[in-house]
Amino acid sequence: MEELLSQLIVLMRRIVFPEYLGQDDRALDLMSVRSVLRKIAGDKIADAFMERIPYISRLLHTDVEAIADNDPAVTDRTEVVLCYPGIRVMLHYRTAHELLLLEVPVAPRLLTEMAHSATGIDIHPGAQIGEYFAIDHGTGVVIGATTVIGNHVMLYQGVTLGAKNIRYDHDGRPVDEPRHPILEDNVTVYANTTVLGRVVIGHDTVVGGNVWLTHSVPPRSRILQTRAIEQPLFADGAGI
Amino acid sequence: MEELLSQLIVLMRRIVFPEYLGQDDRALDLMSVRSVLRKIAGDKIADAFMERIPYISRLLHTDVEAIADNDPAVTDRTEVVLCYPGIRVMLHYRTAHELLLLEVPVAPRLLTEMAHSATGIDIHPGAQIGEYFAIDHGTGVVIGATTVIGNHVMLYQGVTLGAKNIRYDHDGRPVDEPRHPILEDNVTVYANTTVLGRVVIGHDTVVGGNVWLTHSVPPRSRILQTRAIEQPLFADGAGI
Amino acid sequence: MEELLSQLIVLMRRIVFPEYLGQDDRALDLMSVRSVLRKIAGDKIADAFMERIPYISRLLHTDVEAIADNDPAVTDRTEVVLCYPGIRVMLHYRTAHELLLLEVPVAPRLLTEMAHSATGIDIHPGAQIGEYFAIDHGTGVVIGATTVIGNHVMLYQGVTLGAKNIRYDHDGRPVDEPRHPILEDNVTVYANTTVLGRVVIGHDTVVGGNVWLTHSVPPRSRILQTRAIEQPLFADGAGI
Repeated sequence: MEELLSQLIVLMRRIVFPEYLGQDDRALDLMSVRSVLRKIAGDKIADAFMERIPYISRLLHTDVEAIADNDPAVTDRTEVVLCYPGIRVMLHYRTAHELLLLEVPVAPRLLTEMAHSATGIDIHPGAQIGEYFAIDHGTGVVIGATTVIGNHVMLYQGVTLGAKNIRYDHDGRPVDEPRHPILEDNVTVYANTTVLGRVVIGHDTVVGGNVWLTHSVPPRSRILQTRAIEQPLFADGAGI
Repeated sequence: MEELLSQLIVLMRRIVFPEYLGQDDRALDLMSVRSVLRKIAGDKIADAFMERIPYISRLLHTDVEAIADNDPAVTDRTEVVLCYPGIRVMLHYRTAHELLLLEVPVAPRLLTEMAHSATGIDIHPGAQIGEYFAIDHGTGVVIGATTVIGNHVMLYQGVTLGAKNIRYDHDGRPVDEPRHPILEDNVTVYANTTVLGRVVIGHDTVVGGNVWLTHSVPPRSRILQTRAIEQPLFADGAGI
Repeated sequence: MEELLSQLIVLMRRIVFPEYLGQDDRALDLMSVRSVLRKIAGDKIADAFMERIPYISRLLHTDVEAIADNDPAVTDRTEVVLCYPGIRVMLHYRTAHELLLLEVPVAPRLLTEMAHSATGIDIHPGAQIGEYFAIDHGTGVVIGATTVIGNHVMLYQGVTLGAKNIRYDHDGRPVDEPRHPILEDNVTVYANTTVLGRVVIGHDTVVGGNVWLTHSVPPRSRILQTRAIEQPLFADGAGI
């Protein structure tokens, strides 16, 4: 299965980004995608997925724009497509998300775990993510299964959008209900911040880094960690 | 050496989880483990390790239970065994820990570094970890060499159980003494929290995310980061 | 390209650390480095890079010393060279940085992204880093393109040295100007702390973990997160 999924990603990458990666034979690549998907999930799902490729492609191009617009170190977009983990993970996630909507078992999660292992970014295939989504650096980012993210959202490394408390049913099994945050449009979250629970982060909000946030905040908020304690470090001090 | 250790992990995985991965020939797999270990560490250690496999297997099954019990997104345990980095890292760590107890040099650390590279979870083989141990997502987790963890403990991504200050001997070499935390039973630590030094986190304690904690806390404590500063983000504001 | 860069790193590792890795034929390895670099960047740059190898080698040996001096779990330096992600990433970065100074395109960033994927440590090849630099564990560390780091600096896992606000030019493109921190000599930064903007962290300063820091601090400072809230966790409490 992993072998087939690796092939699928290589093919999708060429199909989505021909302008950066060169293109030998697009028709052949498309046929190969269909063939790989038939082996994974059968003819019907393979056909349905093919219909979604233009949509996946359009979203991924908005992600490249979003990353380039937020990073002065980008000299050309080829570097973003080739090197940036934020694009690598979104290629896996946006493919996996469509397969999940088509109710393919196991493969969606395997796809996102392959990206997690390579990039340190863990996006559950069930999360809903809008266009122009940028993750910078990204190691340690976690986006839970019922997260909803609007358009033009930017996350830095180490940001968690997670669950707080889990409810259990009468048989003692954890209940799979909406339990992760909703981020409205134009939200930016800086490094290592943890947002937990079914809270709403209003549009155009900026959350600074290293914040622990478990309640909703209104649109256009600015959230910052309380200022740190600063002292002189005396010669006889034992560090921290 | 890396090649032999990779073989060892593939074999251990099949031996420990036959109910999820299928099983061709258990007797052959066990013979292969012994053969690989003889090459790494000699006959005597290979024989001693074989005696520990049922114990390792029992603990790893408790880890699978602990993860499934804490994650509503789990639909079946096969997904946990196949995809979850929290199980992958524990297979490496629990194998490495037994080899360390048998005083095998270098191989234990190589085993846990292989898992670190693949999962972003860095557990020193010397750490002592009880049963029903769950790491969720896990990227950025660090568990130091002299850490002691009880039963039913849960850690989220980015949690550090580390050392604070290091003492040096008369020759200027750092002293290898107990310097990492002790977590008693039923402790939960949320994302990105840092616990440093030989402190005791009492049983049934919950530590929220993004906390800096360098002292002991009594059983049944709840530790939370001071509430963040929240302001409106005026139109003329320059972000953070 | 990735294949050539992987070869380059394998060769550099043997050339820099013959005392730990054994050495078959140093003259042959040096010839191979030159040959690989000619394919990547042409004769002139290959020749110029060869002149820099002794300098790269000297710095990497100071990095090994710095890691061993700060980690009581180190039993011998071979383990550091073979297993420690902090050395693996510096081999990539110090090679990439010299190639960037020689104005080689794309390859420097690919080299550091290969290390990022393997270690979770993301160092931009443009950063300037002094001698005796130690990263411990390292998952989640981010060091931006215009960062300046002095000598004897130590960073723990999850530390970000990043940019705060980005300025845009008249055409709406982000401006590539100095925007990352300056860390003077003998600075230590503990896990998961985020330092953003062109701020100066004065020499001999210790910054604790989980701190959000966006202004300069004088030499010999001690910076700590405000103490967390500690409460008893009543039996009827719903966790956090």
